[in-house]
Amino acid sequence: MASLLRLPSLLSPSKPLLRRRLPAASSAAGAAAPATAAETRGGDREGQVTPRSVDFNAWYTDVIAAAELADYGPVRGTMVIRPYGYAIWEAIQDYLNVKFKETGHSNMYFPQFIPYSFIEKEASHVEGFSPELALVTIGGGKELEEKLVVRPTSETIVNHMFTKWIQSYRDLPLMINQWANVTRWEMRTKPFIRTLEFLWQEGHTAHATLEEAEKEAMQMIDVYTKFAYEHAAIPVIPGRKSRVETFAGANRTYTIEAMMGDKKALQAGTSHNLGQNFSRAFGTQFMDENGQIEHVWQTSWAISTRFVGGIIMTHGDDAGLMLPPRIAPIQVIIVPIWKKGDEKAAVLEAVDSVQKILKEAGIRVKVDDSELRTPGWKFNHYEMKGVPVRIEIGPRDVANKSVVVSRRDVPGKQGKEFGVSMEPSILVNHIKDRLEDIQASLLQRAITFRDSNIVDVSSYGELKEAIAEGKWARGPWSASDADELKVKEETSATIRCYPFEQPDGIKKCFMTGNPAEEVAIFAKSY
Amino acid sequence: MASLLRLPSLLSPSKPLLRRRLPAASSAAGAAAPATAAETRGGDREGQVTPRSVDFNAWYTDVIAAAELADYGPVRGTMVIRPYGYAIWEAIQDYLNVKFKETGHSNMYFPQFIPYSFIEKEASHVEGFSPELALVTIGGGKELEEKLVVRPTSETIVNHMFTKWIQSYRDLPLMINQWANVTRWEMRTKPFIRTLEFLWQEGHTAHATLEEAEKEAMQMIDVYTKFAYEHAAIPVIPGRKSRVETFAGANRTYTIEAMMGDKKALQAGTSHNLGQNFSRAFGTQFMDENGQIEHVWQTSWAISTRFVGGIIMTHGDDAGLMLPPRIAPIQVIIVPIWKKGDEKAAVLEAVDSVQKILKEAGIRVKVDDSELRTPGWKFNHYEMKGVPVRIEIGPRDVANKSVVVSRRDVPGKQGKEFGVSMEPSILVNHIKDRLEDIQASLLQRAITFRDSNIVDVSSYGELKEAIAEGKWARGPWSASDADELKVKEETSATIRCYPFEQPDGIKKCFMTGNPAEEVAIFAKSY
Repeated sequence: MASLLRLPSLLSPSKPLLRRRLPAASSAAGAAAPATAAETRGGDREGQVTPRSVDFNAWYTDVIAAAELADYGPVRGTMVIRPYGYAIWEAIQDYLNVKFKETGHSNMYFPQFIPYSFIEKEASHVEGFSPELALVTIGGGKELEEKLVVRPTSETIVNHMFTKWIQSYRDLPLMINQWANVTRWEMRTKPFIRTLEFLWQEGHTAHATLEEAEKEAMQMIDVYTKFAYEHAAIPVIPGRKSRVETFAGANRTYTIEAMMGDKKALQAGTSHNLGQNFSRAFGTQFMDENGQIEHVWQTSWAISTRFVGGIIMTHGDDAGLMLPPRIAPIQVIIVPIWKKGDEKAAVLEAVDSVQKILKEAGIRVKVDDSELRTPGWKFNHYEMKGVPVRIEIGPRDVANKSVVVSRRDVPGKQGKEFGVSMEPSILVNHIKDRLEDIQASLLQRAITFRDSNIVDVSSYGELKEAIAEGKWARGPWSASDADELKVKEETSATIRCYPFEQPDGIKKCFMTGNPAEEVAIFAKSY
Repeated sequence: MASLLRLPSLLSPSKPLLRRRLPAASSAAGAAAPATAAETRGGDREGQVTPRSVDFNAWYTDVIAAAELADYGPVRGTMVIRPYGYAIWEAIQDYLNVKFKETGHSNMYFPQFIPYSFIEKEASHVEGFSPELALVTIGGGKELEEKLVVRPTSETIVNHMFTKWIQSYRDLPLMINQWANVTRWEMRTKPFIRTLEFLWQEGHTAHATLEEAEKEAMQMIDVYTKFAYEHAAIPVIPGRKSRVETFAGANRTYTIEAMMGDKKALQAGTSHNLGQNFSRAFGTQFMDENGQIEHVWQTSWAISTRFVGGIIMTHGDDAGLMLPPRIAPIQVIIVPIWKKGDEKAAVLEAVDSVQKILKEAGIRVKVDDSELRTPGWKFNHYEMKGVPVRIEIGPRDVANKSVVVSRRDVPGKQGKEFGVSMEPSILVNHIKDRLEDIQASLLQRAITFRDSNIVDVSSYGELKEAIAEGKWARGPWSASDADELKVKEETSATIRCYPFEQPDGIKKCFMTGNPAEEVAIFAKSY
């Protein structure tokens, strides 16, 4: 129940006190003041956040605490998503919600309590999910006759309702989505990446033909891919899961696989062609144009708060987060700087005017004019939070009618531009240009990182070597499920996907030497 | 598990068949076609929807089915919110989300599983909520050491986290909100109004002083009041709850009380001044400006999917729903009309152009050009769905470059305008005017209805009479909690609130004859 996010160093009484005094001692704006809770928790990165280059996992956990993205909940494995982390999730929601509606889906809401008997109806579904279920057994003070499952996913209850709503081919396609919480009793948890309860959207559709369902499943993995590339600056590799890795209840699972900063793979979104598995289990039938009764063909697809973890682990450096401008809750932070009392009014007036100019241009801008913090503290704090652009305005800038602009993705002096005009149209264009540059540069950096860490292998030995180096291995594969499990056992790597993008020419399975139609990507994963 | 929303009449085999044939027989547009599931479930109101004037409760349930707002879930008391009903909830969310952020609140997310021991920490809270709890006792196949409560509300877990985050007065105020599902094991349920699981927003704030907390609680009931009046066209009465009706754990509860079409009261939103009840139970303390350690002062406030039920039950008539334009998912429905094949192209071209004009003006417009339905069927269907404005376009309209406009709130010929010009600026202004008229007229109608059904009483006898007539009784009250419970026992009426708006002058309690500072409103309620 204690905050695991607080580092042990915080428990020693001397260090926090030392840190509390430092900002006041070097204060340029405002008098010394008692530390706030925020200060003792984050923002002052020295001594608190493990450098990314030293220990990636520790950095990840530290950054989540220091940037106030999330905290641990009182129940093991649960997570509280704090406002800054939730704002990233809202940016994801805003984009996807528009795309889902454009592609013909309506939002709705299904109850989270599912009769236990529903889960048992689809054989592979129950096998996949039953070890992870949370069960409600008492309601209103009484033992329930039938245990209720807290939804781990909604295919079963969706099909129960679809069966009531669908009768004719004219009711098809039925295409819906819900934003909801889901519960899976995970043993090893990690903030955002794997938690007992998480937030997601789950799309569910029913179609008259297999072809339509396949087209829908592909369309949605394409929506996710575009989102990842264009907004989150994550160069995911879209592809098909192996049989072993396919969703419990699906015929085919499509996935987007992302390479994290430690080179481990993250499954960042999935789209399933469910075939008729659930419609047969739940009797979801329709009368086709010829008067024949048929089972519907279905899909489901989901992206979750895990994606926020993916964003954190793709970008970032020793100084903290690095957020792609398109999903950054704050795109520009303005820090006023003054030393003498009589400078203050003019500086704050300029800050206010610059803020208005940027806000009107649709840029998400925040001013930190707190007098409890030094400008230096603020620089570190908003770097930790990954804000893409910082604007500094001091008395000299006011005199010159200009500002100082710094890019989060280019540290130090190289990323700093002096004398950027305050003239509204010039300033707005300048900032928009920088935001676009940063967006493109984060993506390019991630592509370069990804491509330099994928090794093409033509033997099992080469695969083992690549995996041992922490890299991804890509090679022709047509071996058995048993061979796939053997690779997992011996190397901890799994098939992440058969990528949609395939090399031309005849291939030989690197494991068996038999002909192979496709290359597969193997990697260790979260 | 059967759909309780389907009326018995639907189970008789002849009626649906008859109804299925009717639209085709009288078809003006398109050939006869097999019925779709939607047709057998709703839209064709004759014989399906009980008139509002005959049986209000049956009308309510029928309209929810026929307008496809919701359906029953498989677990007793749960509800599936269908796309049209969910879109109304999204309109509520969109408005409130902006207001919450404007008033300084950030969205975030707390886990829904709360250790049972948390609920027990605040004495009146546990007393109020323990009969309604759903408990998770099994997770991942194992009996849990401590039962987990599926959140009925989040004060306890919020305070647990606030205690970690708050140390100094500089951390205050802390003002957050979450959109979430909550679970209360209710015995008597009713779609939207009272369900085992529902959706809501819950705001939680912590302040340095009682005064600030009180101001916040009042501010939020004011936000709700404005929303109800200006967007939902519901003339709620804001006021303070009696001690008996105060939230379990609050010092004061403010409420907005709405009069439904059957004159019963609906508590449509609440805002609580929690005092230091939860901060004392959870040790949520801060150091004030003088270095003193104090407990924080708190508020919480919520509006839920129950509000959708309130909208349905406030407006509407025998023909179905009547949605206020500002929250209507579809503000304008366009129905094309043609008889001969060669008329079709010109009509659809005009329809398309009118749709574009309205869409560009920011109006939520939909075209129903399905050839499987007659215009008459469509008229009924969108009346049932409460769409505020209908536009008809036929060949004569195309020739005259005009359209026919009908208002949902004025039935028959009186609400119909012919020859409204298609010229973009004229048409847009005309439709916007009508939408505003309808919005204002729905509110005015509800105010008149409310005011004509509140009786000022000066004796218990008068109260009994008013309540027996199904009306609200308003009278001076300073009697005891026991007297209040006696009124409830004898009349089924409870104190809905002490309204903020109070008459001047000295008052005498209608029950005891003692001096009374305030009038209270008594009514039967949902």
